[in-house]
Amino acid sequence: MKRILGIDPGLLHTGWAVIETAGSERRYIASGVILPRATDPLPERLAHIFNEISKICADFKPDECAIEYTFVNKNPTSTLLLGHARAAAMVAVGTHNIPVFEYEPNKIKKAVTGVGHADKNQVAAMVKILLPAAFATPAKAGTKTSDESDALAIALAHSNTSGLLRFACNNKSV
Amino acid sequence: MKRILGIDPGLLHTGWAVIETAGSERRYIASGVILPRATDPLPERLAHIFNEISKICADFKPDECAIEYTFVNKNPTSTLLLGHARAAAMVAVGTHNIPVFEYEPNKIKKAVTGVGHADKNQVAAMVKILLPAAFATPAKAGTKTSDESDALAIALAHSNTSGLLRFACNNKSV
Repeated sequence: MKRILGIDPGLLHTGWAVIETAGSERRYIASGVILPRATDPLPERLAHIFNEISKICADFKPDECAIEYTFVNKNPTSTLLLGHARAAAMVAVGTHNIPVFEYEPNKIKKAVTGVGHADKNQVAAMVKILLPAAFATPAKAGTKTSDESDALAIALAHSNTSGLLRFACNNKSV
Repeated sequence: MKRILGIDPGLLHTGWAVIETAGSERRYIASGVILPRATDPLPERLAHIFNEISKICADFKPDECAIEYTFVNKNPTSTLLLGHARAAAMVAVGTHNIPVFEYEPNKIKKAVTGVGHADKNQVAAMVKILLPAAFATPAKAGTKTSDESDALAIALAHSNTSGLLRFACNNKSV
C-alpha cells in the first residue's frame, strides 16, 4: 500500500490530492485547493503554499509526491511565477523527505485517459470514474474545482506509471 | 541599527550576505555561497537552498531581506529554474517572518555604483570599497565569488534605497 500526494501548483490556486494505491486498487483519501491571497506580497503567498503543503505532508504522511512538470509557454513571465509556486510546494515536500516525481502534462492525460491530447473535461470525467469517492460527499458534489481534479489526475497518473519520469529536469542547471 | 540579508539566488550557486546598517554606516557581518549538488534531483537542490537560508536566518536574525528581481531573459527555461531557486530562498525567509524586498538588477547597480549599466567588475570594486571587511580575512582575500559579491551588492543596494521597490511583482498572478 502506498500513499501518493498529487499537486497541481499555481500562485492563485494550488490543487492537492492524496490517494492510496494497493495493486490495481485506488482509494481516495483527501483533496483540496490552497488559495493564497492575491493581494499578498509574493513571498507571503509562497510561504502560504509552503505551510499548507507542509501541513498536508504531516497530516497524511504520503510516501511519494507527483507534480506537473512546467514548460515555458507563450507567457514566460506567468510561467516564471508558476515556477515559484511549484518550488514552494516542492520545498515543502522535500523537507519532509518525500520523493518528488515530475510528470509532463500529456503524460498525465495519457496515463489517466489513454490519450495524450485529451481535454480537461475528459480528464475530469475519468477522474470521477476512477475515484468516485472524491465526489461522493453531497457537500462536495459538483464543487470540485479543476485544480483539485487535476491534482487527483496527477496522483492517479503516478499510480499508473510510477516513477518512470522521475526527475525529468534533474541535470538542468542555472 | 538594522540587519540586512542579501540573496543572489541560483540553482548551482546561491550567494548570501549579511550586513548591518546604522545611519550611513555599513558593517560586514558574514557572507557565503550555497552550493547544491548539480547531480541531485531538483527537489533536493531546492530543499538544500531552503535549509541553508533557514539556518542563516536563524543564526544571523536579519530584520529585512533583499533579493534580485528576476526577468525572463533569452533562455526562459533557465529563468524558470532560477525562479525555483529564488522561490526556495524566499520561502525560507518568509517562514521566518522577515520582509523580503525585490530589486531589479539595474537598480542594484545604480544604488551601488551610481550607474544602472555598470558591469560586474565595477560593482565588485565598489563592494570592496564600501565593505572592505568582507575581504579583509587573509584566507578570504581574492576568494570572494561573484555570487557572494553580488549578494553583498544587493544588501548594500537595499541599505541605500530601503523599501522603494518592495514587492514589485505583488499583483501578478498565475
